[in-house]
Amino acid sequence: MKQTILVTGGTGFIGSHTTVELQNAGYKVVIVDNLSNSQANVVDGIEKITGVRPAFEQVDCCDFEAMDKVFAKYPDIAGIIHFAASKAVGESVEKPLLYYRNNIVSLVNLLELMPKHNVKGIIFSSSCTVYGQPDPENLPVTEDAPIKPAESPYGNTKQVNEEIIRDDINSGAPIKAILLRYFNPIGSHPTAIIGEMPNGVPMNLIPYVTQTAMGIREQLKVFGNDYDTPDGTCIRDYIYVVDLAKAHVKAMERVLDTDSDKLEVFNVGTGRGVSTKEIVDAFEAATGVKLNWTFAPRRAGDIEKVWANPEKANNVLGWKAETSLEDTLKSAWKWQEKLRNEGIQ
Amino acid sequence: MKQTILVTGGTGFIGSHTTVELQNAGYKVVIVDNLSNSQANVVDGIEKITGVRPAFEQVDCCDFEAMDKVFAKYPDIAGIIHFAASKAVGESVEKPLLYYRNNIVSLVNLLELMPKHNVKGIIFSSSCTVYGQPDPENLPVTEDAPIKPAESPYGNTKQVNEEIIRDDINSGAPIKAILLRYFNPIGSHPTAIIGEMPNGVPMNLIPYVTQTAMGIREQLKVFGNDYDTPDGTCIRDYIYVVDLAKAHVKAMERVLDTDSDKLEVFNVGTGRGVSTKEIVDAFEAATGVKLNWTFAPRRAGDIEKVWANPEKANNVLGWKAETSLEDTLKSAWKWQEKLRNEGIQ
Repeated sequence: MKQTILVTGGTGFIGSHTTVELQNAGYKVVIVDNLSNSQANVVDGIEKITGVRPAFEQVDCCDFEAMDKVFAKYPDIAGIIHFAASKAVGESVEKPLLYYRNNIVSLVNLLELMPKHNVKGIIFSSSCTVYGQPDPENLPVTEDAPIKPAESPYGNTKQVNEEIIRDDINSGAPIKAILLRYFNPIGSHPTAIIGEMPNGVPMNLIPYVTQTAMGIREQLKVFGNDYDTPDGTCIRDYIYVVDLAKAHVKAMERVLDTDSDKLEVFNVGTGRGVSTKEIVDAFEAATGVKLNWTFAPRRAGDIEKVWANPEKANNVLGWKAETSLEDTLKSAWKWQEKLRNEGIQ
Repeated sequence: MKQTILVTGGTGFIGSHTTVELQNAGYKVVIVDNLSNSQANVVDGIEKITGVRPAFEQVDCCDFEAMDKVFAKYPDIAGIIHFAASKAVGESVEKPLLYYRNNIVSLVNLLELMPKHNVKGIIFSSSCTVYGQPDPENLPVTEDAPIKPAESPYGNTKQVNEEIIRDDINSGAPIKAILLRYFNPIGSHPTAIIGEMPNGVPMNLIPYVTQTAMGIREQLKVFGNDYDTPDGTCIRDYIYVVDLAKAHVKAMERVLDTDSDKLEVFNVGTGRGVSTKEIVDAFEAATGVKLNWTFAPRRAGDIEKVWANPEKANNVLGWKAETSLEDTLKSAWKWQEKLRNEGIQ
């Protein structure tokens, strides 16, 4: 049995998939989640998939005393993967104070508690949004691309949290950290036991695609067909959530069990740019379901194209995105069908 | 009688001088200070100077519930001047988590409480450090100069707090704000009843100068004599603290009583660059006291030269730095003599 890992936000989309992969790799997991944006029964799903029930504590990471008690209750926690965060870009524009407080205080609490409880490593969920606006000068984006002013309070909390971790380590804190900059995570577990649960109208492309295919949304709008890309639609790097989850396992091994630098940054993407139109076509081809979609004007704030150079993660973490776009989109559809079958969405 | 103003950090260096000027201008003042870096008897000093005793509450701005009670106790608070912050650059490098937590949470608390208690305006203490490193491209620095990555956690909290205020106002919060970017505040009240109280070895030039003149420090080191400046030493914009305090009064009038934009930014400086060597010479000339000083190698992280373009504050706030460098340095020396006479330093 490997070490015990605290997964904050462990009942959320990426957190739950990462818990599955951590348990598959032999780690013990303690989930902390305040359930503000996820369901407790995700823990049942994780147990069903892996045969192991992770420990679960319904606690808000912003509550310093409560988090202190969690570490005291599980004194063998060796590392943390910190997913817990308010994460809706649009909501962050409307409620910036909520985002700054939640996302910064929760991280500062963890960093303050780590030395006290002898926790050695932390993996932080960052985002390619730090490469910001306008479009990156060089594609694919490497980890040393310039950090741009954030476009939203949400994006700013990712940047500030990266800076807080860097400053903490530079101050001599006895911890190590890895920042993972995700590109666009999509798909669901192949079992369709856990998956992405958008609140209300989805802001991300894939849930909108699957809900349109299911008839929940009338029509998919593809924003802009006159971008400087081969088919005129925006290009992103869509990374399968299970592949992304496996990157966390590799990162945790590295941060806890090697003499790696105290702070490292990795892009987590496929290295392949895929256009919105290609997603639509690939979804129809993979599922045989016809999508009702149309072009609409460009949406303010969208960047034209961005995709990762994942070579550093490939070479240093020994991790690579392996799942085809077809299988990824099939998993998303299977999850949507499951939600329908269970009367959830 | 004008409105009631909450001054956080009101027993500190700039906060106490600003309270004096607010009261001189007819405002009622409520001071909130946790006394972590100042003394309660500063309130006596303010009363002695102005004839009016400000209300005082020993409260930490990071304590949301306690701040809520302060606003409830003084329901006529119309505006806030927010000085309270951890402010030592060097300490912030050693204890970054303390700085991020204190400086960000205290601001977020105030911004959340303002609409609830019908507080209309806030003046935020920012700093020319946001123009950052390396040296500004254009001198003097105007308010639209690019914001550079912060050189210290302290500087970063100033930047992030500017962004939080901007995001809050962009979200539609029913408040107005003015960001004042201070250059180098120096000197003390002409009465020598209140002044700057550095903790331990001063990190700023003027307290080091006056303590050396007093014999508390053996020798003043002037770091670098080979900069690209007329006499080879660094150039800064030293602003008399009483002039700076008066800028806050003008800013408060504007934010509360005019139809100004919801968010405005002003440099607060003299517009005149003064070299370290000039300060040494001017101090000796103004006080007749000989300084024991020597050149020392450049200090890592010092920028070569920076001074403000204060035209926007001159024109829009109707404020101008008026005190001569000679009178400013005399005030600093008078304060140092008072500290000696009272056996304090």
